[in-house]
Amino acid sequence: MQTRAALLSHARDTLGALRREGRYREFAHLEKLAGRFPVYRWHAPQGVREVTVWSSNDYLGMGNHPAVLAAAARAVEAHGAGAGGTRNISGTSPLHAALESELASLHGKSGALLFGSGYIANQAAISSVLEALPGFIVFSDAKNHASMIAGMRGAKGAQKVIWRHNDLADLEAKLAAAPAAAPKLIAFESVYSMDGDIAPIAAICDLADKYGAMTYLDEVHAVGLYGATGGGISERDRVAHRVDLIEGTLAKGFGVFGGYIAGEADLVDYIRSVASGLIFTTALPPSVSAAALASVRALKQDNARRERLAERAAALKSALDAAGLPRCPGPSHIVPVMVGEAELCRQVARRLLEEHGLYATPINYPTVPRGTERLRLCATPFHTDAMIADLVAALRAVLPARTVALAAE
Amino acid sequence: MQTRAALLSHARDTLGALRREGRYREFAHLEKLAGRFPVYRWHAPQGVREVTVWSSNDYLGMGNHPAVLAAAARAVEAHGAGAGGTRNISGTSPLHAALESELASLHGKSGALLFGSGYIANQAAISSVLEALPGFIVFSDAKNHASMIAGMRGAKGAQKVIWRHNDLADLEAKLAAAPAAAPKLIAFESVYSMDGDIAPIAAICDLADKYGAMTYLDEVHAVGLYGATGGGISERDRVAHRVDLIEGTLAKGFGVFGGYIAGEADLVDYIRSVASGLIFTTALPPSVSAAALASVRALKQDNARRERLAERAAALKSALDAAGLPRCPGPSHIVPVMVGEAELCRQVARRLLEEHGLYATPINYPTVPRGTERLRLCATPFHTDAMIADLVAALRAVLPARTVALAAE
Ligand SMILES: Cc1ncc(COP(=O)(O)O)c(C=O)c1O
Ligand SMILES: Cc1ncc(COP(=O)(O)O)c(C=O)c1O
Repeated sequence: MQTRAALLSHARDTLGALRREGRYREFAHLEKLAGRFPVYRWHAPQGVREVTVWSSNDYLGMGNHPAVLAAAARAVEAHGAGAGGTRNISGTSPLHAALESELASLHGKSGALLFGSGYIANQAAISSVLEALPGFIVFSDAKNHASMIAGMRGAKGAQKVIWRHNDLADLEAKLAAAPAAAPKLIAFESVYSMDGDIAPIAAICDLADKYGAMTYLDEVHAVGLYGATGGGISERDRVAHRVDLIEGTLAKGFGVFGGYIAGEADLVDYIRSVASGLIFTTALPPSVSAAALASVRALKQDNARRERLAERAAALKSALDAAGLPRCPGPSHIVPVMVGEAELCRQVARRLLEEHGLYATPINYPTVPRGTERLRLCATPFHTDAMIADLVAALRAVLPARTVALAAE
Repeated sequence: MQTRAALLSHARDTLGALRREGRYREFAHLEKLAGRFPVYRWHAPQGVREVTVWSSNDYLGMGNHPAVLAAAARAVEAHGAGAGGTRNISGTSPLHAALESELASLHGKSGALLFGSGYIANQAAISSVLEALPGFIVFSDAKNHASMIAGMRGAKGAQKVIWRHNDLADLEAKLAAAPAAAPKLIAFESVYSMDGDIAPIAAICDLADKYGAMTYLDEVHAVGLYGATGGGISERDRVAHRVDLIEGTLAKGFGVFGGYIAGEADLVDYIRSVASGLIFTTALPPSVSAAALASVRALKQDNARRERLAERAAALKSALDAAGLPRCPGPSHIVPVMVGEAELCRQVARRLLEEHGLYATPINYPTVPRGTERLRLCATPFHTDAMIADLVAALRAVLPARTVALAAE
């Protein structure tokens, strides 16, 4: 067989199908402007234009915090552009060690470990745990992120049981049905990023205790944002000590790049010693670890910023509701506006951008189930009342009347 | 079962066994000093001390290049610390697009795609290709890197056939034995990082043509270093156009962070559209993409630096040979010195560091097969004759006489 021709023809067919379904992703070229967040410069074929971004995961604007930028710039000057090695092969700097201590303390754990991203942290840590004991069963929330799923898929010998999203009765039924002697891991998130709902962590820990299971919690969309010092929902709910492994990112609430896990020191040291996704890759660069360290430290003390985020999210929700726009209810800072069809979602986003200078990514399958296509909006502490008013007016102009009517039902 | 107790006990047993075998990895805390490379500050429990590093993968010292540092600092100031989103969700900047064009052109390809690391590039791209057609068989060189192996493991339905390292006859026998109708991928590296030997790329492409296979080449230890413009061994050997996918890192020869693939535009676009490891993770930060872009551009024109690397590697090899030290022969810039036993290797490295102020990582299983434990040395353009003389004297002092005698046989 001529593999090249067959693969290219498959690739072209797939790209054609994505285009026809309205699911072909074009990455908008958006130039972040430090100091003007959330205003970006959009580089389009027809020219450059300023736009307001409503889809950033730099939830608190920490990517533009003066102390964070100063730390990054100082690290570049003092230590250069890259780590120059894997963690084991000359790539560990005192900055990595300091950041790991800071993250362990943030979550009240005795150990923490950095990874190249939250994606790799999930994948590597989950695989390592599931491969540690024979016959592991992982109980995975149905809405878990692709990176957690990658970790489960990658674990040879482990069995995966999916429980209905945030459904304690279903989780318990599945735990009870599993062999009592099998090692068990419950894997879930705190804030679910596409719906904005929040897991009942304490109740899940109760079930874990009852059935002898361990818990693995992805706090990617919560760290920095919730809890008195930014430790996430597990801090807010005072249950961090009951969760075995907490995973987070430095790229969203903390505004920089990279991922990590925190947990009992020996367990973290074990993962450090066996995880392929940690051992065989270059360590995070000095500017990233320095900036992240500055960000975690600043956010530990900056409750005002967290309160401002909550206030802005509430303002956005009320404005949408007052205008009769179809948002998903939810307690977090994430505000999904339902559109329900891939091509329509793409068109709505394109009109917002081209006609109104507002950027909101259309979220389509496979990120969300078909039929639940949406715009996912986040008001940061830097989105003003005027920006919210503009957004609401633009949404009323571009969302088809039937979508708006549906919401009113 | 009490999973937590069982897992912790397994973790502690494993850590104990690693310690007993001399394979427990302690990450030395090494502070890179921009402008003084390869001199670092070693932060040890007993105090801080300057050391010369012989194990950096910042092979050309580009992590300290003034243009690279200036680009990183400018990007932090102008665009902040993080991308604030995945590539699709507001995280693509014009810098990503410019870097992808530059990398496509570096390899003479119509497309290129950035990933968070070379590790993720290999894992995501190989899985995506192998899952594209049913019945794919991947022919994997026995010494392929863990990240390529992760990509093959992750590919549901694909079959893996391992051929003897760099052995064309074995590769051909295995290609010939496979069903003619099955799609085939030959996956290999150019410079193998632990031995420093180089693959016969043209001859492998001949076999690929003969058996209708595609080729996937990891040039992680060659990009920036070989070829007239830094395109790697495939450029040096004038065979880049014959390789379907070329994978590289921005973290070694280019001195920064991140990974990529380059290939036919539609194939790259397909991988962009389906790869979980690309879609579901935050984009590289502005400082990283700006620094990498500056580095790739600078190295395109800086043959003097590549020549200086070759000259320094040759100087290191002659000095080791003249002193009767046991190095692996090999044509590249990587110079392994065999020790052959994990605990001994660790002790030799520790004495080099503590008694001589020289850092060289002990390389143990699973990075290399047991019995072939080694120090892996790289002379960069910044390692002076005096540094080489110091290293040789120190190695003679710390390597046991029997190891040196073996080399003389
Ligand atoms: C729930 C969840 N976990 C993990 C990740 C990966 O984190 P990172 O962007 O640091 O790779 C993401 C998104 O990117 C996510 O949404
Ligand atoms: C052959 C090879 N491929 C890929 C990688 C991964 O590259 P990165 O460090 O950018 O993740 C490495 C080492 O780190 C390597 O040695």
